[in-house]
Amino acid sequence: MAQDDFELASALADDVAREGLLQPHEADQATHDGTGRVQLHYRVDTGSGDPQDRQVRVPPGVTVFDAASWNGIAIDSTCGGHGTCHKCKVRVEGDALPITRHDVKTFTSDQIAAGWRLGCLVKATRDLRVDVPPLTTRPKAATVGVGRQVILRPAVQKRYVELDEPTLADQRTDLVRLTEAVTDLEFTADLHAIRRMATVMRQADWKVTAVLVDEVLVDVEPGDTTDTQYAIAFDLGTTTVVATLLDLATGTPVAVASMLNKQQPFGGDVITRISATMMDPSSLGRLRDAAAATLQELATQVLTEGGVDPASVYEVAVAGNATMTALALGIDPEPLGVAPFVMSVAQPPSVPAADLGLALHQGARAMLFPALGAYVGGDIVAGMLASGMDRDKRCRLFIDVGTNCEIVLSDGDTILSTAAPAGPAFEGGAIRCGMRAADGAIETIKLGDTVELGVIGDVEPKGLCGSGLVDAVAELVKVGLLDASGRFVPNDDAASVAPALADRLTAVGEERVFVLHRPSPDAPPEECVYLSQRDVRELQFAKAAISTGWSLLLEELGLEHRDVQQVLLAGSFGSYLSPASAVRIGLVPKLPVLRIVAAGNVAGEGAKMALLSRREREGANLLLEEVRYVELSDRPDFNDAFVDQLGF
Amino acid sequence: MAQDDFELASALADDVAREGLLQPHEADQATHDGTGRVQLHYRVDTGSGDPQDRQVRVPPGVTVFDAASWNGIAIDSTCGGHGTCHKCKVRVEGDALPITRHDVKTFTSDQIAAGWRLGCLVKATRDLRVDVPPLTTRPKAATVGVGRQVILRPAVQKRYVELDEPTLADQRTDLVRLTEAVTDLEFTADLHAIRRMATVMRQADWKVTAVLVDEVLVDVEPGDTTDTQYAIAFDLGTTTVVATLLDLATGTPVAVASMLNKQQPFGGDVITRISATMMDPSSLGRLRDAAAATLQELATQVLTEGGVDPASVYEVAVAGNATMTALALGIDPEPLGVAPFVMSVAQPPSVPAADLGLALHQGARAMLFPALGAYVGGDIVAGMLASGMDRDKRCRLFIDVGTNCEIVLSDGDTILSTAAPAGPAFEGGAIRCGMRAADGAIETIKLGDTVELGVIGDVEPKGLCGSGLVDAVAELVKVGLLDASGRFVPNDDAASVAPALADRLTAVGEERVFVLHRPSPDAPPEECVYLSQRDVRELQFAKAAISTGWSLLLEELGLEHRDVQQVLLAGSFGSYLSPASAVRIGLVPKLPVLRIVAAGNVAGEGAKMALLSRREREGANLLLEEVRYVELSDRPDFNDAFVDQLGF
Repeated sequence: MAQDDFELASALADDVAREGLLQPHEADQATHDGTGRVQLHYRVDTGSGDPQDRQVRVPPGVTVFDAASWNGIAIDSTCGGHGTCHKCKVRVEGDALPITRHDVKTFTSDQIAAGWRLGCLVKATRDLRVDVPPLTTRPKAATVGVGRQVILRPAVQKRYVELDEPTLADQRTDLVRLTEAVTDLEFTADLHAIRRMATVMRQADWKVTAVLVDEVLVDVEPGDTTDTQYAIAFDLGTTTVVATLLDLATGTPVAVASMLNKQQPFGGDVITRISATMMDPSSLGRLRDAAAATLQELATQVLTEGGVDPASVYEVAVAGNATMTALALGIDPEPLGVAPFVMSVAQPPSVPAADLGLALHQGARAMLFPALGAYVGGDIVAGMLASGMDRDKRCRLFIDVGTNCEIVLSDGDTILSTAAPAGPAFEGGAIRCGMRAADGAIETIKLGDTVELGVIGDVEPKGLCGSGLVDAVAELVKVGLLDASGRFVPNDDAASVAPALADRLTAVGEERVFVLHRPSPDAPPEECVYLSQRDVRELQFAKAAISTGWSLLLEELGLEHRDVQQVLLAGSFGSYLSPASAVRIGLVPKLPVLRIVAAGNVAGEGAKMALLSRREREGANLLLEEVRYVELSDRPDFNDAFVDQLGF
Repeated sequence: MAQDDFELASALADDVAREGLLQPHEADQATHDGTGRVQLHYRVDTGSGDPQDRQVRVPPGVTVFDAASWNGIAIDSTCGGHGTCHKCKVRVEGDALPITRHDVKTFTSDQIAAGWRLGCLVKATRDLRVDVPPLTTRPKAATVGVGRQVILRPAVQKRYVELDEPTLADQRTDLVRLTEAVTDLEFTADLHAIRRMATVMRQADWKVTAVLVDEVLVDVEPGDTTDTQYAIAFDLGTTTVVATLLDLATGTPVAVASMLNKQQPFGGDVITRISATMMDPSSLGRLRDAAAATLQELATQVLTEGGVDPASVYEVAVAGNATMTALALGIDPEPLGVAPFVMSVAQPPSVPAADLGLALHQGARAMLFPALGAYVGGDIVAGMLASGMDRDKRCRLFIDVGTNCEIVLSDGDTILSTAAPAGPAFEGGAIRCGMRAADGAIETIKLGDTVELGVIGDVEPKGLCGSGLVDAVAELVKVGLLDASGRFVPNDDAASVAPALADRLTAVGEERVFVLHRPSPDAPPEECVYLSQRDVRELQFAKAAISTGWSLLLEELGLEHRDVQQVLLAGSFGSYLSPASAVRIGLVPKLPVLRIVAAGNVAGEGAKMALLSRREREGANLLLEEVRYVELSDRPDFNDAFVDQLGF
């Protein structure tokens, strides 16, 4: 080289800065368009002679391979983006692209000069154009989450190999023999696999299947078992826990089961369970055992239903809020329950599935979703993954309504999250005739000349669940029986604004109530299903907490209601809520109802995605860097905003 | 940059090749002097104005920091060579030295231009000159092994920190808070540490000690516990197991204990124990339990003697042969016992100490020494470390005499190893009056006009141990009672060559024997301690196996006996052997006896070194790449060489 040392030093420092040595948050300082994202323009050779153009925007530092994978653009790969299979060849336009040793091994000098690189090793630190050659193999994909197309590439990988028998001239260890036979993946081995290896290889006549979870060999199985590989996705809710058994070879769900969380006896919500651990030191262990028993019982159910051997399950993913995650791992949740609401860890380490009480394959691993804050937990991160909150240009608002309501707002560049303490109203708590969404619960209400009730299970109405509560209030506001401040109008006014309904406005004791259902024509009001003035107040406080949350997030990004292109209502409550009622009471921004979408069990979908694709899983981890958590409880403007949001 | 893309691409590829991205074996292809080593010339500023020059030779790819550390040259560092503490500043002479992001953070452009780098990030891929500035702190060092000076830098690290209390404005997780407070080390956390963290931090008023083993946080302890950190080094022998409790804060041994391996009832040597597992499938588990019980009993002994709490022991190191290591880990040893003698793994994974049956700190780890082959195990690798076989310019021969005899030869550049099946003669097995080196064993013999016996425990002689056997044969050859072929001379000849001893040459049954000790003047030969003709044959076969081993290694490197500058006799047997006798019977090359050195329990010393210095430990792992294992059993020239070596 003709340059003097110092020039070279500077040049190299630049290249090192552009190189793969940087952490994502450091890469942020690199050149891009200033929006916090870089733009990648993919030209995909579909093999049909008609290339497909796709533009995607990702946080800087993401690899060209990941960015494609997250956006459903398939690039050849078997190693999953670790630089080991040398298959993800792309041509990148741009000056002074870094070159890795893997590139040098894979390409000729001419190809390198022309911009050919392994896509998994090129980090997008600025806008790039990327040519993607036709696929040599057809990748498997599955549709998961909110219409997300996921290219199958689980952390669980099996490779069938036929090994050379050792000789005195070839005394390679069993592990080296296996490692060298699996050409597209690099891995270490856990002790369990090492213990089994010698026997299995020799008994199976050196024809074996290597079982990997991430970069760890967890077993060596006799013969070809590549078709048999399963995982279980858990949505570990405070109330309900859902398990989905997934066939990783095909990406399809095999069986689903759900049950109440066995921690229920310790309290209905996270705060009462945290309190239980503070009152009695033995509670932490018992709560952990209860979580373990719930997960194991569900695992047994889905395995039995699917006819799958527990030993064929190599991984589980768990999406739960921060408290559920802490309790499942046996971490003291106390600091989550008291200000300043601090987690022990945001990203729990991967643990043996056995540590969660699960009897699956002996080497099975468990990944638990990371949390953004004490009250925006792994369930929300999973939900963001499933709904693609981090890779959508639209301005979207994600609301998971519950006792603790998590809110995420993305304007396509910046993502903010917060938690709002909505209280138990939406789960029927603190509501006179409130009940969970179970048989007999009124879930929809329409008021006009008559009262039309939708009741779960088509039985005699017994109470009011969250969605029914929202409907009741919204309809009463609509017909004019509740005023904008949330007060029942005087009886005289009632008779004039809604003559057909006025007689239902009565009192139980001192308190005014609106009767929704009379078990018999003569039943006194206290034997009816009714909505009381205090119930309305409870709902007002709950919805004000939530709408204050999203209002402040909108304000942070300088946005108005109308800028929001989609509101995703997550969780089971979100599925039942009437969008029109939600808009009417101000639970969500004033928007056309078509923009309000029930997203379903997005936490569970996110858990499935993490199992089907390690790229997606890394996307979840990246959210920790990307999403800014906004703490509401110390904001001076919170109270004013809250009062503003109380009315209808 | 003015260069065109392709020039830059090539330049970068070169730099990448020189960069830290390379694996050691790939770095071999880089430029150096062709001997398989690179030479580093250190100029150490001692602060006295009188710089010290030191030249060392290391395998290419070793960092400038490691190379110094291995050779007792101290460079400032607290992170132990991970690029995180930014203290190991050195100035390196040479063109186009790679620059890392850590260098950019640490030095000014002028300094970088002048060659300043972090020593732990500069890999020596060619000869280099390195200026070492004066130390800012005095490093602790300990003398271990065969006069090796080891700079203390254990894998176990404690850091006392006083943390900021969290607030609503500072909701960092407990782990992030701790991670950011420990400025010189990077780490992840194990689940046990995460579980304890929240409680300990709050109870200890945010003044805590982080306990790390390698890059993993294994505990958070209240207050400042940095003075309390221990480890246990185990020499896990087939016969005897030795434990040394080490104070890691000072580098000094606190207590030592030894006992017979509780696996003895399964057989005296590795082959009988391997056979036991082949005969009865339950034996593997029982052998593992016996190893665990041995280790735990010794741990209890040294902890009791040292007055140390088991929970203050954070790491153990185990040096054992391949079979002992496999059995301790519960790995089926069968393939080690039958041709082609294959190990499951050369480098066992680090495991929780609890997996070895040890009740120490809950997060304590165990490192087991890697093996070079089925019969050159971790004990030999530890011994090589302790004796500095890999960093000495002299031509040295290392022999660990035993049932299986391990031999290592280094000419200062190339290191070869092999194993020779010596059989049980040296342990008193298959010898008529043979016994272990215990009370009553004749360990030294001098023949002249009388017979002078050295007896262990100064008691009535009861038998002959290995060193006594070698002495007996050597002395009988010297006085002429044994001929060069190993046959007792005829009685008539005996009377003329050694008249004072001739009457001791008699017979037991059909076999001729030489009486070493008569319990009473009239005792018949069969009640005496004697050496039989067949005993001599056993010894001949044993020593021929060994000398064939080192002869073939010498031949491989084109060396003669006289080229060997030092012979290290390792193991307890080596300590007792008379160098003169060993030379006389041809067990070691024909050399001046001063070149024959008893090295003592080098396996145990190596285990201590691994605990005191992670640099040394990495050196042990590097031996796996460096040392070539020579399999004797398939060599066509083995039998000829063996026959050549039978005589005296």
